[in-house]
Amino acid sequence: MREPFHPPTESISLASVMHAMSDPVRLEIVARLAGSDGENCGGIGDGIDVHKSTMSHHYRVLREAGVTRTTLEGRSRVVRLRHDDLEARFPGLLTSVLAALRRTGPTGG
Amino acid sequence: MREPFHPPTESISLASVMHAMSDPVRLEIVARLAGSDGENCGGIGDGIDVHKSTMSHHYRVLREAGVTRTTLEGRSRVVRLRHDDLEARFPGLLTSVLAALRRTGPTGG
Repeated sequence: MREPFHPPTESISLASVMHAMSDPVRLEIVARLAGSDGENCGGIGDGIDVHKSTMSHHYRVLREAGVTRTTLEGRSRVVRLRHDDLEARFPGLLTSVLAALRRTGPTGG
Repeated sequence: MREPFHPPTESISLASVMHAMSDPVRLEIVARLAGSDGENCGGIGDGIDVHKSTMSHHYRVLREAGVTRTTLEGRSRVVRLRHDDLEARFPGLLTSVLAALRRTGPTGG
């Protein structure tokens, strides 16, 4: 397996980050990652009723936007939020999204 | 002209707000509104090279997500950011997006 593409911090685009975090399933993934120190790709989606290929798409959108980092650890792909990179690029943004997720969930209510 | 639909503050959805602010043109509109006390629909788009019907679509997405409020004032439609409503619903979110827009613009760089 080769290392997947990640944008450098200084190239992360606001529009792309907002788009990556505009889908309820991707927001659910972000919420789960926020409470963990890295998740195996296979494990994040537990209980999310979405096809495996759709989940792969969601991981890719998050990674290519700069929201997550996927690293190869042994035979696993481990996904983490790019907390520090996002905080450096767009101070307060991820923090306020995570707070909103705790308050209302992805779609409100 | 009838009053257009606006979601009540407590129904504003995070996914919808993020989606509304995930498009470079809509982010540009948000940036312009942030520096004004309300803009006539016709005026916001000055210098944005987008067809009038596309601009109408963008206004509608922002309004229906709860990001902006459109009021009829005389014969004009005036658009404003729902600063206070968004701050009440998702504290810090709009502020961090506006700060990001000042730093990098919609798409970075």
